[in-house]
Amino acid sequence: MDLRSEVKGMAKKAKEVSHLLAHLSTDAKNRVLIEMAEALEKNQTFLIEENRKDLAAGEKAGLSSSMIDRLRITPGVIQGMAKGLREISSLPDPVGEIVRMWRRPNGLTVGRMRIPLGVIGIIYESRPNVTADAAGLCLKSGNAILLRGGSEAFHSNLAIVRLLQEALNRVGIPEEVVQIFSRTEREAIQEMLQLEEEIDLIIPRGGEALIRFVATHSKIPVIKHYKGVCHIFVDETADLEMAVKVCLNAKVQRPGVCNAMETLLVHEKIARDFLPKVGKALQQEGVELRGCPETQRILSGVKEAKEEDWYEEYLDLILSIRVVKGIDEALKHIATYGSFHTEAILTSDYKNAQKFLREANSSCVLVNASTRFNDGFELGLGAEMGISTSKLHAFGPMGLEELTTTKFIVYGDGQVRG
Amino acid sequence: MDLRSEVKGMAKKAKEVSHLLAHLSTDAKNRVLIEMAEALEKNQTFLIEENRKDLAAGEKAGLSSSMIDRLRITPGVIQGMAKGLREISSLPDPVGEIVRMWRRPNGLTVGRMRIPLGVIGIIYESRPNVTADAAGLCLKSGNAILLRGGSEAFHSNLAIVRLLQEALNRVGIPEEVVQIFSRTEREAIQEMLQLEEEIDLIIPRGGEALIRFVATHSKIPVIKHYKGVCHIFVDETADLEMAVKVCLNAKVQRPGVCNAMETLLVHEKIARDFLPKVGKALQQEGVELRGCPETQRILSGVKEAKEEDWYEEYLDLILSIRVVKGIDEALKHIATYGSFHTEAILTSDYKNAQKFLREANSSCVLVNASTRFNDGFELGLGAEMGISTSKLHAFGPMGLEELTTTKFIVYGDGQVRG
Repeated sequence: MDLRSEVKGMAKKAKEVSHLLAHLSTDAKNRVLIEMAEALEKNQTFLIEENRKDLAAGEKAGLSSSMIDRLRITPGVIQGMAKGLREISSLPDPVGEIVRMWRRPNGLTVGRMRIPLGVIGIIYESRPNVTADAAGLCLKSGNAILLRGGSEAFHSNLAIVRLLQEALNRVGIPEEVVQIFSRTEREAIQEMLQLEEEIDLIIPRGGEALIRFVATHSKIPVIKHYKGVCHIFVDETADLEMAVKVCLNAKVQRPGVCNAMETLLVHEKIARDFLPKVGKALQQEGVELRGCPETQRILSGVKEAKEEDWYEEYLDLILSIRVVKGIDEALKHIATYGSFHTEAILTSDYKNAQKFLREANSSCVLVNASTRFNDGFELGLGAEMGISTSKLHAFGPMGLEELTTTKFIVYGDGQVRG
Repeated sequence: MDLRSEVKGMAKKAKEVSHLLAHLSTDAKNRVLIEMAEALEKNQTFLIEENRKDLAAGEKAGLSSSMIDRLRITPGVIQGMAKGLREISSLPDPVGEIVRMWRRPNGLTVGRMRIPLGVIGIIYESRPNVTADAAGLCLKSGNAILLRGGSEAFHSNLAIVRLLQEALNRVGIPEEVVQIFSRTEREAIQEMLQLEEEIDLIIPRGGEALIRFVATHSKIPVIKHYKGVCHIFVDETADLEMAVKVCLNAKVQRPGVCNAMETLLVHEKIARDFLPKVGKALQQEGVELRGCPETQRILSGVKEAKEEDWYEEYLDLILSIRVVKGIDEALKHIATYGSFHTEAILTSDYKNAQKFLREANSSCVLVNASTRFNDGFELGLGAEMGISTSKLHAFGPMGLEELTTTKFIVYGDGQVRG
């Protein structure tokens, strides 16, 4: 079959079964999630063997050791996927929830009922665990899923999906609820992005280049997350001991993720006091510092921060630092260089806390807490599908609710419009 | 200035002032809405004179009398616009609302705060009143607006926007909060649709061709409404007297709008009883009936409904009728031919009412009420910006809330992630 017919055929099947999935009981969905978790655990050897084919190909192709690492399926990774699926089974089912209900003067009772989006396409890079996580979240929220994973994880992804589909079959749910493209050509993505009748939402996960490619070519709505240039502003009245602790956590606890701090903004009135403290703590953890001229005057061992540094998502043990006149300059810096991801203010001042919460234009704004908390699980949404930095439909972590929409329902007794 | 620079320059200004607008007090926004209403009323002569230029050009260009009618600004139309703006001023301000707030085990208090989207582009056809309505809704929801009206209403739209901007100036708000393109080339739309950095949302209003053009060319998210093929299913147990009344209202009260009924589905067990009753009432109102063979057997004066009739949005005094075996066949018909807009069931059966509400996959589903109620004002949202038939972000009427998004806000006292 040619590529176009194959992609379209899969999407059409997904659309068909999505209607059934939309009205599946919570019990049935939870049962299949637990079946899926068990299937992964019971077939550890099969998964690891299939994964070995990808690892061997990856090594031959000269993938970096960090990429090989992300590709590798260990018993621990399998446990993690199974645990994730069980957790999703324990989360409340968003489908069918009546978000609100009110009565109109003419006696109509009007409400908004949560319903699935339909079919969700996920385009992602080479982390096989995304396959199970994304399938679980879509299933629980009543959406059929079309997966298109990175070609480096080809055998691993097919093996995971085969086990998930077997679990679906055992519970009597059509396996087309979870499908994966077996074609790795980039053209398969392009074909997929044209299918606005069959696919309701595209979520690209991975590097900025992939996400921009998808956003440019898609006729289907895309929820995207380009990058996280996250800031902490340490205000004049901050508790400096707490500030050192929070800044350290935001930068070094896991520097390679999108909610790690990339730029530190410090109020000029405390810069001479605070910068040596935080600088020492960060340098002890191996963080390279790049600062504005004022930072360089106060701290030794600091490189010059160039204009492009303020835009940079290092995803590494590097931090840019700027001394600012106060909250207004901090907010202006964030508005100019930020990425709408995560910003925190550390302060003891009530008015500045409220002002920052209101005016920082990002998906998550925190007072006196680490930027690392911008995460679906940490914020209390349960598991997440990614973090959206665009404002339409979802802004911030996307949990189960964000994979649904609402329709209006109306109970009447013969009302007509006058 | 060349077209591209002009369009981009306006969008950049809109983005700049959108930050200010996002934090404007409700009082200030309401004050300017009332100033705007007064400005329209006080300058009736100016508006009617400017409108006359469009009417003259339209007549010269041979516009149909119904198009000339929609284009015409009368004292009544001006009153309507002013009333609309005053109503928007009396609606609750969605910006800053904390939608929900909860506490995490580690003591973090997490909430979701409503914020504006930023800059909204509206592309619409030749009804000058849309200019004032859209500007008012965007202003109240804290969004800057870029208007691109139909070229037939060129002078009328410029005149309305000039008055709105003067009102903004009087209250000390930058007039760039409401801008209109003075270039009528189609290329201006195409340039606008590229500006994903400056514009957050595009709402096209008008014919299906315009909307498809926008959806195909836009890099910016689009909320769209293609058409309303609305159904009423009259179940076996319906109160037939009420059913006649509701069907008549849904078809003839205002046949040219998107929430009017286009197809009537009738349960076979009551068809012989119900069709003559409803057929007579509809035919008395001048409705042309097109039916399935069974309908034709029961009712006289009914044309044959062809396959394409079931897809048709007549927007006229025409109705297609099909006799079905029951609720499942009705839902299947709607899933095949429907447009995700509005569906109603008329029934006395509890189980079928609940089943239909759940399974009809449209933006508004009603029991025992006219489809004409799918309207922002009628459902209790206040004024509306249009009705979305796509599921992302907004599904159904878009009121002020649908012109906003939420960000996460977090109150901590030094929490770090472990």
